[in-house]
Amino acid sequence: MALIVQKFGGTSVGDVERIQNVAKRVKREVDAGNQVAVVVSAMSGVTNQLVDYVTSINPLYDTREYDVVVSSGEQVTAGLLALALQNLGVTARSWMGWQLPVSTDSAHGKARILDIDCSEVLKRLADGEVAVVPGFQGVGSDKRVTTLGRGGSDTSAVALAAALKADRCDIYTDVDGVYTTDPRIVSKAKKLDKITFEEMLEMASLGAKVLQTRSVEVAMKHGVRLQVRSSFSDDEGTLVVDEDEIVEHELISGIAYSRDEAKITLIGVSDEPGIAAKLFGPLAEASINVDMIVQNVSEDGKSTDMTFTVTKSDMVRAVETVRKHTAEVSYKDLLADSNVVKISVIGVGMRSHAGIAQRMFQALADKGINIQVISTSEIKVSVLVAEDYTELALRALHTAYGLDATD
Amino acid sequence: MALIVQKFGGTSVGDVERIQNVAKRVKREVDAGNQVAVVVSAMSGVTNQLVDYVTSINPLYDTREYDVVVSSGEQVTAGLLALALQNLGVTARSWMGWQLPVSTDSAHGKARILDIDCSEVLKRLADGEVAVVPGFQGVGSDKRVTTLGRGGSDTSAVALAAALKADRCDIYTDVDGVYTTDPRIVSKAKKLDKITFEEMLEMASLGAKVLQTRSVEVAMKHGVRLQVRSSFSDDEGTLVVDEDEIVEHELISGIAYSRDEAKITLIGVSDEPGIAAKLFGPLAEASINVDMIVQNVSEDGKSTDMTFTVTKSDMVRAVETVRKHTAEVSYKDLLADSNVVKISVIGVGMRSHAGIAQRMFQALADKGINIQVISTSEIKVSVLVAEDYTELALRALHTAYGLDATD
Repeated sequence: MALIVQKFGGTSVGDVERIQNVAKRVKREVDAGNQVAVVVSAMSGVTNQLVDYVTSINPLYDTREYDVVVSSGEQVTAGLLALALQNLGVTARSWMGWQLPVSTDSAHGKARILDIDCSEVLKRLADGEVAVVPGFQGVGSDKRVTTLGRGGSDTSAVALAAALKADRCDIYTDVDGVYTTDPRIVSKAKKLDKITFEEMLEMASLGAKVLQTRSVEVAMKHGVRLQVRSSFSDDEGTLVVDEDEIVEHELISGIAYSRDEAKITLIGVSDEPGIAAKLFGPLAEASINVDMIVQNVSEDGKSTDMTFTVTKSDMVRAVETVRKHTAEVSYKDLLADSNVVKISVIGVGMRSHAGIAQRMFQALADKGINIQVISTSEIKVSVLVAEDYTELALRALHTAYGLDATD
Repeated sequence: MALIVQKFGGTSVGDVERIQNVAKRVKREVDAGNQVAVVVSAMSGVTNQLVDYVTSINPLYDTREYDVVVSSGEQVTAGLLALALQNLGVTARSWMGWQLPVSTDSAHGKARILDIDCSEVLKRLADGEVAVVPGFQGVGSDKRVTTLGRGGSDTSAVALAAALKADRCDIYTDVDGVYTTDPRIVSKAKKLDKITFEEMLEMASLGAKVLQTRSVEVAMKHGVRLQVRSSFSDDEGTLVVDEDEIVEHELISGIAYSRDEAKITLIGVSDEPGIAAKLFGPLAEASINVDMIVQNVSEDGKSTDMTFTVTKSDMVRAVETVRKHTAEVSYKDLLADSNVVKISVIGVGMRSHAGIAQRMFQALADKGINIQVISTSEIKVSVLVAEDYTELALRALHTAYGLDATD
C-alpha cells in the first residue's frame, strides 16, 4: 500500500469523457490498495479563455482579481472529477485551495506555496476517500485567492506530495515521458527511464515544457519521487530521481533548446570597472531577466564588446532601457537579433568527464554552424546559434553524443 | 447619499462588453455619491454549460460537488466586474461567498442564507470601495460551497441589501419591470410602477419569472425596497413595496399564468373520514407537490370525485404513486390531463371588494371557456382551463379588469 499523488494536465481532462477516463485511472490505484490524492488542471482552453476575458477588460489588471477569475477553471475540473469518481463507486471529495488550505505568499499571479494543511485529508485518505485538489490555486494570508503562475498545477501536485509525504507523485500529461530531445524534430529521440532532478531542472528551464521548473525545484528540495507519464497510454514514464538512484550515468541525458531568445550586443563599450553593474542594474530594475552574458577581453585595454541575451518579448524594452542610460554606459554601436536559438546539452555525467563541450563545438563545426555565444554550468553547456540551424544542430548533437535510438 | 445594492442577471453580464456597460452603470451611482454593493450572476449560458457537465457525468450527482462546479460561473463575473470598475477608476474588489462569509444551511443545491457578515464590507463601502459579490453562492457550516438554487442571485442581492441595511435593492434584468401580464401574449399589457410584496410573491410563484420567489419573501420579511429595472435602458422600473406605500390600489394588479400544471381526477372515491390523508400522504412522501385540491360534495353520501394538480414533470410519478395505494384509497377511475393552464388574477385590492371572482368567471364564460378547477386565496383567484385557451383567456381577463393600456 502506498500514498500516491496523481496530477492530470489540461488535455488529460479536456472534456467530460476524458475526465471519466481519468476517474478510471484513479480507481485503478485505489483498487490496488493505494491511498490517492489527485491534482487537476483546468480543462484545456479554459484558462486561456479566462485570461482573455481579463486582458480584454484591462491589460494592466489587478492580479488579485485575475486570480479570482482564472482559478475557477481548476475548481470546475475538481468538482467534476469528484463526481466521476463517485460514479465509479469511489468515495471522493474536492478540496479548494482555501479549504485545505494551501497557504501561499501574496504574490498574486505567481504565488509560492508556504504550507499545505493536510491533517483532515490524511485522515480521510486513511479511510479510503480520494482527495481531489484543484491545482494552480492557493490562498494568501489575507484570505484572498492566489494562483501559482502558468503550469502551476505541477507545483501544486509536488507540494501536496511533499506535505502528504507521498510515496510517489505521478504527473500525467500528453507526452509519455521525458525524451533525450524534442521527438518532433529528432525522430531518433529516446524516452528516458530516469533523469536526475538537476538535469530535469535544466531541461525544464530550457524550454522542455514537460514540467514547470518550480515543481522540479520543490520536488528536489523535498525528495519527492516524481514520474512523468502519459494519461493516454499505460506505458511507464520517466522517473525524476536523486542522482544516487541512477547507477550508470550517460554522459549526456538530453539536449534542450529554446527559441525564446534574443541577443543584444554593445560594440565598443569603454572597458572600466563597474561598467557591468551600470549596464545590468537598469535592466534588473525594469524586471528584464538577462540570461547569457559574454564580455570579450579588451584588445586595446580601452574598449570591449559586450553581448547578452534576454527573452524575445523583452528585447525591445531591453534595447530602450540600454539606450536610456547612454550617459552612464557609452558604446559605439548596438545590435539586436532575435533570430537566435539556445541549444544546451545537459547531463550530470559531464561533471566527471572532460571533453563534453569540445565534442559539442566539433559537431556543430562539422555542420558549418557558427557559435555566437557560449555559456556553461556544472551540468550543462549552452550555445547560441542562428535560429535557422535549430533542427540541424539538434540532430547533429543527438548523434554526436550517441543518443540516437537504435531500433 | 444612499447605500444601494445592484444586481445584474446573466444577460446583463453576457459578455465582456456588457460587463463594461454594467461597470459604467455602477460608476454612475458611485459618482452620485452613493455607496454601492453589486451582486452578479454568471455570464448567460455558463451555468447551463456547467450543469450539463455535471449531469452528463452523473444525473444523480452529489449536490456538494455540483455546488463546487456551478458556483464558479458567478466567481468569474465578480472578478471581471471588479476589474472593469477599476478600469474606470472606481475602487472595487470581489468577495466570494466564503470570504464574506455568506453563511447558509447545508441544503446543497438549494441552500438558504442564514447570515451575511458585512462588517468589513461596510467599512470599505464607507471608504468609497465598491463590493462585488457573486450571487447564488454561499458557504455551509462545514466550510463547503453551497448554492441557492436557480435564480438564487436575486435572493443573494436581497439578503445582502437586508444585511447592509441598504436604502434600495435594484434588480437589473432583461425586462424593464413587472407587467400586468405577459406582454408577449397581451400586447396591451402595462408596466406597473409599483406592486406590493404579496402581489409580487404570487406573480413570481405563478410563473412570472422576473424575480425568484424566495428573494421576494426575504425582501418582504426584511422590508427591503426592491426595484426591478432593465440593464439596457434608463427607464424607471417597477418598485416592489409595502402595501401602505401604495395609496390608490387597483383592484387587480396583474394576471399570471402557469403552463407547468397537470390535473389528476379520481372518480368514485369512497367518501369517508381520513381519505384525503391516505391519498396525499404518499404523494408528500414521494416529494410531489400538490397545488390545487378540489373535493366535490358527495351526492349519495358514499362516493365522491377528487381532483388535484401537480407540476407536469411530476404527473407520471403522481399517477404511479396513487395506483400503488389502491388498497387504502379505492376509486372507480383515474384521469390525468397535462393539457391545462392555471390562470390567476392577483391584487391586494380584492380583499376589500366583492365580485372580483365573479367578474373572472363571467369574462371566461363570455368567451366560452370552461373552468375545470377553482382555487382562491386572500389576494388571488386561480382557475384551471384547457391549455389551448391560454391566450384568449389572458386577453379577455386583461380587458375585463380594465388593465389594457389606453395609448
